[in-house]
Amino acid sequence: MDSSFGATSDTIVALATPQGVGAIAVVRLSGPLAISLANAVFHGKDLEKQKSHTIHFGTIRDGDQVIDEVLVSLFLAPTSFTKENVVEISTHGSSYIVNRLIKLMIRQGARPAKPGEFTLRAFLNGQFDLAQAEAVADLIHSDSEASHQAALHQMRGGFSGEIKLLREQLIHFASMIELELDFTEEDVEFASRQDLRLLVEKLLRVVEQLISSFDLGNVIKNGVPTVIAGKPNAGKSTLLNALLNEEKAIVSDIAGTTRDFIEDEINIGGVIFRFIDTAGLRETTDTIEAIGVSRTQEKMKSASLILYLFDLGDTDMLEINRDINKLENQGVPFLKVANKVDKANPQFISELKNSHPDTIFISAGKKQHLDELRNRILELVNLDKFRTGNTVVTNIRHYDSLVRTRQSLLDVLEGLDNEVTNDFLAMDIRRSLHYLGEITGEITTDDLLANIFSKFCIGK
Amino acid sequence: MDSSFGATSDTIVALATPQGVGAIAVVRLSGPLAISLANAVFHGKDLEKQKSHTIHFGTIRDGDQVIDEVLVSLFLAPTSFTKENVVEISTHGSSYIVNRLIKLMIRQGARPAKPGEFTLRAFLNGQFDLAQAEAVADLIHSDSEASHQAALHQMRGGFSGEIKLLREQLIHFASMIELELDFTEEDVEFASRQDLRLLVEKLLRVVEQLISSFDLGNVIKNGVPTVIAGKPNAGKSTLLNALLNEEKAIVSDIAGTTRDFIEDEINIGGVIFRFIDTAGLRETTDTIEAIGVSRTQEKMKSASLILYLFDLGDTDMLEINRDINKLENQGVPFLKVANKVDKANPQFISELKNSHPDTIFISAGKKQHLDELRNRILELVNLDKFRTGNTVVTNIRHYDSLVRTRQSLLDVLEGLDNEVTNDFLAMDIRRSLHYLGEITGEITTDDLLANIFSKFCIGK
Repeated sequence: MDSSFGATSDTIVALATPQGVGAIAVVRLSGPLAISLANAVFHGKDLEKQKSHTIHFGTIRDGDQVIDEVLVSLFLAPTSFTKENVVEISTHGSSYIVNRLIKLMIRQGARPAKPGEFTLRAFLNGQFDLAQAEAVADLIHSDSEASHQAALHQMRGGFSGEIKLLREQLIHFASMIELELDFTEEDVEFASRQDLRLLVEKLLRVVEQLISSFDLGNVIKNGVPTVIAGKPNAGKSTLLNALLNEEKAIVSDIAGTTRDFIEDEINIGGVIFRFIDTAGLRETTDTIEAIGVSRTQEKMKSASLILYLFDLGDTDMLEINRDINKLENQGVPFLKVANKVDKANPQFISELKNSHPDTIFISAGKKQHLDELRNRILELVNLDKFRTGNTVVTNIRHYDSLVRTRQSLLDVLEGLDNEVTNDFLAMDIRRSLHYLGEITGEITTDDLLANIFSKFCIGK
Repeated sequence: MDSSFGATSDTIVALATPQGVGAIAVVRLSGPLAISLANAVFHGKDLEKQKSHTIHFGTIRDGDQVIDEVLVSLFLAPTSFTKENVVEISTHGSSYIVNRLIKLMIRQGARPAKPGEFTLRAFLNGQFDLAQAEAVADLIHSDSEASHQAALHQMRGGFSGEIKLLREQLIHFASMIELELDFTEEDVEFASRQDLRLLVEKLLRVVEQLISSFDLGNVIKNGVPTVIAGKPNAGKSTLLNALLNEEKAIVSDIAGTTRDFIEDEINIGGVIFRFIDTAGLRETTDTIEAIGVSRTQEKMKSASLILYLFDLGDTDMLEINRDINKLENQGVPFLKVANKVDKANPQFISELKNSHPDTIFISAGKKQHLDELRNRILELVNLDKFRTGNTVVTNIRHYDSLVRTRQSLLDVLEGLDNEVTNDFLAMDIRRSLHYLGEITGEITTDDLLANIFSKFCIGK
């Protein structure tokens, strides 16, 4: 570990629960002095004589002034999140109390924790690797079933195990080949070139698979970019509002647990759909022009899903056929959605059902058949691939390292084909090892760590 | 206890930490099935076989889907906050996870907790009395040293103990006098009228003292109502902004623990000062007119403290003396604050120091001598009375009950003076007992309880 972050001899303190008013707040300490610092201000049992994973009631005092009645949870090294001594002080949920308590702990000798520093320590002390540590942050920010499952899968091991195993085998080959360098005059071959090729090919398959999962991972993390297209007055903004309002109703069904509601995202069956150019749609009149206007076409190209909406009352088949034709040529999955079914001419509906049997008939204004629309949307994005426990790369840093790994593995294969000298071969293998190691954190720099953990919240 | 709230046979669940993104969130269960419901979805040790006050690592699963890796804290009845079985599940701080977990527990058979229901159960199960339960909410919302100390003192017993003791003695007298009613023809006197008078007088002294503490209590809870008065352009808004900005700087000195900042409140030495008509002051020009305009005078009468600000550059002694005279006649404590000392004529300053030696010289614009101003403000409001552990009534419900208690105690004394019949005396004593009992919750109604606890947050 080439990192000055390794010095974890001091004891850090931070609020671990969200800010704001709640029943309780939890202040967390980690470090060699965590228990003795807490004990010095705690009135109750002697915390230094208690077992790990026990909880103790008492008061926290600043001199002779009681700050609060608290519950103190003890986690003794190494059986804690950070593998250091950890104390969690559960106070009444007042920011005044939290502030007093943290200041008191700082006066006792603790240091305010930096963002992500608890997780950083967990990583530095070998609790998990870097990719897993990064997944902790993703897990906290997950807001759908798909992003939650991807983050949890990664936090609990994910591709780390597989990559580590293959990396170790590659290290073995690298050592063997480097050993051969010492015996260049004797023409020995400690490392079978055939076995090396097989291993590199196997690694390449894994790496390719992970790289190709990134598109999916990106969608899981950031939502499926979706466009509602159609002529002005087809009812695009009405449809968006209808979907958003039903979502809001679902989201707020348990008092006190409402998740942050994002104006242009809709969770359908555990997958987030992110509506593009919602701002335009949400205005009182439809501002996105009919298909054919270049600005909209641009947007549709960046979409993963298009809802093509048309008004059953004021359009004709020729126009619809022309639009659908254009959409088919764009290659982006799309749904044909016929709106205002409540006011439509039955003749026109049956015509449509003949020519376009996959049309969905809805009424956005009356909120009719929206469930059917949601089901069809889910079918189209192939829900199954979001639900499997398959490893999915969601982190752009990992993606970058994987792309570099792929290139260096291809270089190794090319070297084998061209029977390059051992020193070149060893160099390419080392490069592969380096990029692979960056993912799991076997290879890190202070800059890299600082960059990763600065994105965490304080207290994590 | 005349309350249908007594039925606590079901198990309740709620988020105990504030909503929002944080390192961890805590979901709390209380009730007879708390442990078995948690155990049914927890993979790890068998929670039903573990000791109280222990913590267990494992996963929460919904079917075969892992929801999160968690720490589960166990509190076995009666050694918990509610005196029931309590389970606290500490998850990663994602609202998605919290939502999933609470829904899962509800499917298992738990019921979403109502606001304050955990504290209600603690009260119903005898953990503390009603006045203490109410102090829990005050403690959570405390935002200054003074309000924090008052709430904590009350939560830890406060006047409850004293009132209970005197109430028990009064109950004894009531019983004796009611016993006499059964022997009316025999002219016996089980209860010494002299002792009863002494007890009632003692109770009256306590009640009077508590009633008179309410003004102070109100100030502690809601802040000292303060007015900055002075002519237009004296620098009133500049002074307010200077005080607020320094407060903001102090408040945000520990990253991640900033308390909610209220625009017109300033914490000086642990006491909140609430500035009246700040909206007017914060506008670019001073809108409060010079002393003498009736609207301002109205405001100054409701103030507990007036900062009388005048510009050293554009005013004369006659005018100042006239204003100060008016202020003295109003009877509200005030400070004479001379502004723009950096630009003042030395001659004028020394004149002022002679005629008004208690003047404070500041420059609001240059933030000079603001510390001195703050110290003088604190002296004027007599910090000591805020700091003592003395019992202070901060709750208007308690105040109302105390006022009624006082009246009924005076009725008892009057009855003793007039030697009224025993049944009238007993009635007045019973009335005193009723009002006293309302404070600590020996006497409650469902309406009263519902009203009190509906003001709590969910999860408390």
